[in-house]
Amino acid sequence: MPELPPLSDASIDQLFREARTQNKWLDRPVPDSLLHEIWDIAKYGPTSANCSPMRVVFVRTGESKARLKQALSAGNVEKTMTAPVTAIVAHDPQFYDKLPFLFPHADAKSWFTSSPALAEVTAFRNGTLQGAYLMIAARALGLDVGSMSGFDNAKVDELFFADTGFKSNWLINIGYGDPEGLFPRSPRFGFDEIAKVV
Amino acid sequence: MPELPPLSDASIDQLFREARTQNKWLDRPVPDSLLHEIWDIAKYGPTSANCSPMRVVFVRTGESKARLKQALSAGNVEKTMTAPVTAIVAHDPQFYDKLPFLFPHADAKSWFTSSPALAEVTAFRNGTLQGAYLMIAARALGLDVGSMSGFDNAKVDELFFADTGFKSNWLINIGYGDPEGLFPRSPRFGFDEIAKVV
Repeated sequence: MPELPPLSDASIDQLFREARTQNKWLDRPVPDSLLHEIWDIAKYGPTSANCSPMRVVFVRTGESKARLKQALSAGNVEKTMTAPVTAIVAHDPQFYDKLPFLFPHADAKSWFTSSPALAEVTAFRNGTLQGAYLMIAARALGLDVGSMSGFDNAKVDELFFADTGFKSNWLINIGYGDPEGLFPRSPRFGFDEIAKVV
Repeated sequence: MPELPPLSDASIDQLFREARTQNKWLDRPVPDSLLHEIWDIAKYGPTSANCSPMRVVFVRTGESKARLKQALSAGNVEKTMTAPVTAIVAHDPQFYDKLPFLFPHADAKSWFTSSPALAEVTAFRNGTLQGAYLMIAARALGLDVGSMSGFDNAKVDELFFADTGFKSNWLINIGYGDPEGLFPRSPRFGFDEIAKVV
């Protein structure tokens, strides 16, 4: 395997350094084909025992947006109602039922059926990882995102997951951002404030 | 703001499609300067109210590796002992004390001091997001990673975070992977198996 060079500065800027949480959206559609493309990238991100617990509802239609609106904090309503698509990042608490397909070389299902606490933390941790991959994949395709935790999770679960038992995690608006809606970039920690090498 | 093109296929391959969880490492060092570079990219990934709760210990020396070994599942010992660096991804349960610096335009600290349950889920969710950004940033710089949840979190907290109260989340081996250690790629879900558009 050849050594891999770093990505270009422009690519790293696009994914991280210049990417911003968007609050206002250009009137430019995000076709379903692009949502499929996002997943076809994000699905390769690593999860524990390939457990892949994330489940997603992409909310697009006016009717579904109106349903979601009932659960949103006031400050998140306008940007979510105007976003081309809003992803509800959720996870399946019974993700382990799919492990015979996802991790066929071991009886991984039993690791989780024997420990509900391990199953719960694994679903949340790995569903969250996959939501991060989803955001990065969207940016890799030239899209912008804006994430939100400000909503009523129980209400979203009732409105969107009553039939499946999935648990909502957070929301991601997806589209093409209008820079007029940006806030100034907030400070970040320096390396020595959050890390050490031992 | 000009429209952003998608990243090149080679870049998306490097981050996701061709990137693999590594189990064996080439004898090629990872200097501290590269760990700083990883953070200087990953720090820009979004977190809720910019709360940035992740804390990291990069375990490099033989003495520190031996300490970490005490907490590892048997199957994770060799690859972790031979990795140039192992990152312990953790989070600060009292991350909110830093919000006056990180999110100066609102009294965000009070949102969390008034709700221990919200603080706990926010620390875990956003610390996990930041760990994902760390993995992607490492890959963007040409490094390989290998993540593991198979260890005793309480033991790691006792060994590495007794003084700070930080909570370990998972471990990331960092280096240059030896393809001889790769397992075959496990299956992934198709879009329709985990997502719907409504």
